[in-house]
Amino acid sequence: MNYLESDRFIETNITKNLEELKKLISHPSVSGNKVGLAGCAEFVKDLLLERGFSINIFEQNDAPIIVAERKGKSNKTLLFYNHYDVQPPDPLELWQTPPFEAVLLDGKLFGRGANDNKGNITNRLLAIDAILDQMGDLPCNIKFLIEGEEETSSVQFESFVEGHTDLLDSNACIWEFGGVDHEDNPVQYLGLRGICYVQLEVVTANRDVHSGLGGSIFPNAAWRLIWALNTLKDKNEKIRIDGFYDDVIPPSDRDKELMAALPETADDFKERFGITSFVKGLTNGPELRIAEVFEPTCTICGLTSGYQGHGSKTSMPAKASAKIDFRLVPNQKPVKIFELIKSHLVYHGFEDIKIIYMGGESPARTDPDDDFIQLILSNAESVYGKPMRIVPMTGGSGPNAVIQDTLNIPIATIGIGYPGGAAHAPNENIRLDLYEKTAKFLVRIMDQFI
Amino acid sequence: MNYLESDRFIETNITKNLEELKKLISHPSVSGNKVGLAGCAEFVKDLLLERGFSINIFEQNDAPIIVAERKGKSNKTLLFYNHYDVQPPDPLELWQTPPFEAVLLDGKLFGRGANDNKGNITNRLLAIDAILDQMGDLPCNIKFLIEGEEETSSVQFESFVEGHTDLLDSNACIWEFGGVDHEDNPVQYLGLRGICYVQLEVVTANRDVHSGLGGSIFPNAAWRLIWALNTLKDKNEKIRIDGFYDDVIPPSDRDKELMAALPETADDFKERFGITSFVKGLTNGPELRIAEVFEPTCTICGLTSGYQGHGSKTSMPAKASAKIDFRLVPNQKPVKIFELIKSHLVYHGFEDIKIIYMGGESPARTDPDDDFIQLILSNAESVYGKPMRIVPMTGGSGPNAVIQDTLNIPIATIGIGYPGGAAHAPNENIRLDLYEKTAKFLVRIMDQFI
Repeated sequence: MNYLESDRFIETNITKNLEELKKLISHPSVSGNKVGLAGCAEFVKDLLLERGFSINIFEQNDAPIIVAERKGKSNKTLLFYNHYDVQPPDPLELWQTPPFEAVLLDGKLFGRGANDNKGNITNRLLAIDAILDQMGDLPCNIKFLIEGEEETSSVQFESFVEGHTDLLDSNACIWEFGGVDHEDNPVQYLGLRGICYVQLEVVTANRDVHSGLGGSIFPNAAWRLIWALNTLKDKNEKIRIDGFYDDVIPPSDRDKELMAALPETADDFKERFGITSFVKGLTNGPELRIAEVFEPTCTICGLTSGYQGHGSKTSMPAKASAKIDFRLVPNQKPVKIFELIKSHLVYHGFEDIKIIYMGGESPARTDPDDDFIQLILSNAESVYGKPMRIVPMTGGSGPNAVIQDTLNIPIATIGIGYPGGAAHAPNENIRLDLYEKTAKFLVRIMDQFI
Repeated sequence: MNYLESDRFIETNITKNLEELKKLISHPSVSGNKVGLAGCAEFVKDLLLERGFSINIFEQNDAPIIVAERKGKSNKTLLFYNHYDVQPPDPLELWQTPPFEAVLLDGKLFGRGANDNKGNITNRLLAIDAILDQMGDLPCNIKFLIEGEEETSSVQFESFVEGHTDLLDSNACIWEFGGVDHEDNPVQYLGLRGICYVQLEVVTANRDVHSGLGGSIFPNAAWRLIWALNTLKDKNEKIRIDGFYDDVIPPSDRDKELMAALPETADDFKERFGITSFVKGLTNGPELRIAEVFEPTCTICGLTSGYQGHGSKTSMPAKASAKIDFRLVPNQKPVKIFELIKSHLVYHGFEDIKIIYMGGESPARTDPDDDFIQLILSNAESVYGKPMRIVPMTGGSGPNAVIQDTLNIPIATIGIGYPGGAAHAPNENIRLDLYEKTAKFLVRIMDQFI
């Protein structure tokens, strides 16, 4: 292929392609509340049909799974994993543009899902358009596996993949995300932490009670929750659940070496998020970066109880709940962690705290010496003008363990992300310069994957 | 006075009087959000003007204070303290009727403020109407002091009373509430706990952060709040703030004797509020009743942080806050308690937790042997058919200490309340039979207060 020509195609056709992305963002496909997922999936299907893909849609759990395939010249098959669902847009008041009406501003496109993960779907299609324009055909077989529950822990994904191994059979996989670091170096992320997401709920009475009446003698749902949560993790960030760290494999020397080669992040984090210090006495250097991704977490994502409006209300709450995510590192398993939390609560006398499993994924990693990863690394500099950095593990999660364990293939990460992209936060956005580069990069990889 | 005639007046005119109460309830005067207070005060003023009272309205802080007076035959002055503001109606979904549209159902009137405290205002007016109808004049001077910030700790009340002692000068005071216990015995409440209401707030970043990114290394606002709250009170309900219990005067032998004479409450509490057990190992008997009112509290009234919607969101919150009320017993003082909490947080390493004083009131009590109290006790049986029980202390709070310390007068509690009245809760209501009895009772007290 002539990459100069395909690069020019991408530069010329990006505007038209972004119109497709804007329409995709206009579907408010928040998997957390299961609204609009089918309509969004239908739109994604149409985008793939226009590129000559054959489509299978699996309707289940109100979040259809899309599997698409188009044959190419070689016998090798490249699988793209993506998702069309998004995080809730809350807190809405912090958005400077409407979350579901994408707005182009100063070389960036703002909107919920622009970065995570709708922009990556349309970006892959832009690369495919560039190849088809020049070759009229694909160099290799391309498959898409696009789900609608990634943001809610891909609850049905594992059983789906296990039940459709022939349909999904491939030689390598490109994961949903990827991009550059805060110095615009392209980065290859080779691992994802796992996750175990739980909700704790407690009900102490059939209604809220005047605090002057019950304050001294009734159990208080908010206090029960506070005391239970306090037993999970101490002020020094040590998770106190018995057995929690038992299966943890610490980073290898090679991991530490790869992490040490990565750029400093401390100042950038402080500036971007307005934080004054890190936890666990961390300040900067490889220690900070290693802790960021190689340690498991217990993060409270939400707390709610009683009166939360303006001013004061003297009423003791009958209900309280918390949402907590545990990020897991190799070889922790979400179901085992869930059982440990359950036992922990009972052991500490919190039989009254109900625990709900909201979803889980295992951690997984790919070998940096795999041929597919080397192919990717060898093409990065021609597009980005800088060599690609290797990150052996990242902090996020996704169902990559399912693909790796079931299809037994390497997984690479290529995407349009950058550190200011505000994934999961207000004012989520993408940079158009990176959008172009990613499509150009993908053209080269598909062309050489033969 | 002929009480048979005044009783009949009350029975005949209750319907007309309740129409006034319904209109009063239709003013959604929630002091927590400072909406509609002036309009509500205006309506109360009109009700008093119609009874020939002269009115002073003091406009301050968007919650006008009303002082009304009508002279009577004797030189003695009886002061009614009431408030026209109400608690927020949340949680709205639990109301069976609209909170601000009073509905009459099965001998009860439902609506926010029906019980606390608007119904008591119109009930006093019904008693005055009955006296004026028969005598054309009042037996003693009657004053009303009606504020609009009682539900938000009467922030400006103390300075107001201290600045208007001549205007408020009286020989005795009838407090805003009162009523019967769960066996329909009329009850005289002779003390109120104090209160210190605070809000704790913590901000750890300038925005919420993807939990896969910050979970291991960024401070989490929700966790900071949990750990700080956990230091305030332990699982055994012991408040752990240094010096918190120092000024507590325990109940006297006479207090214990009066408390022992009161009926059992345990089963009623369990049934009404759907609770299965009490805290501190309490089960029933005088111990439960004494703990209910003679012990100070630390009650979480509200908790909020991060995502609280349906499903899961993997984002660590930048902000968290809690609303807490401390009920105080003699001789604890709210300002001192606030200072102790502040020092406690700093001592435990929570300089990052901001503490806001939302209001406070001192505890206060009246002597059961006071002449005014004896006058009240001597009239109860003729109306209620049962002798009045004496409760030396109650769990709620109010600015009675301000009246007692400034005007140096006894304070009695007479009102339309009953244990099912759901004050501060959804479906707040009053019983019409008790509404009638209270007005009849008030006629007798005013007639003999000469």
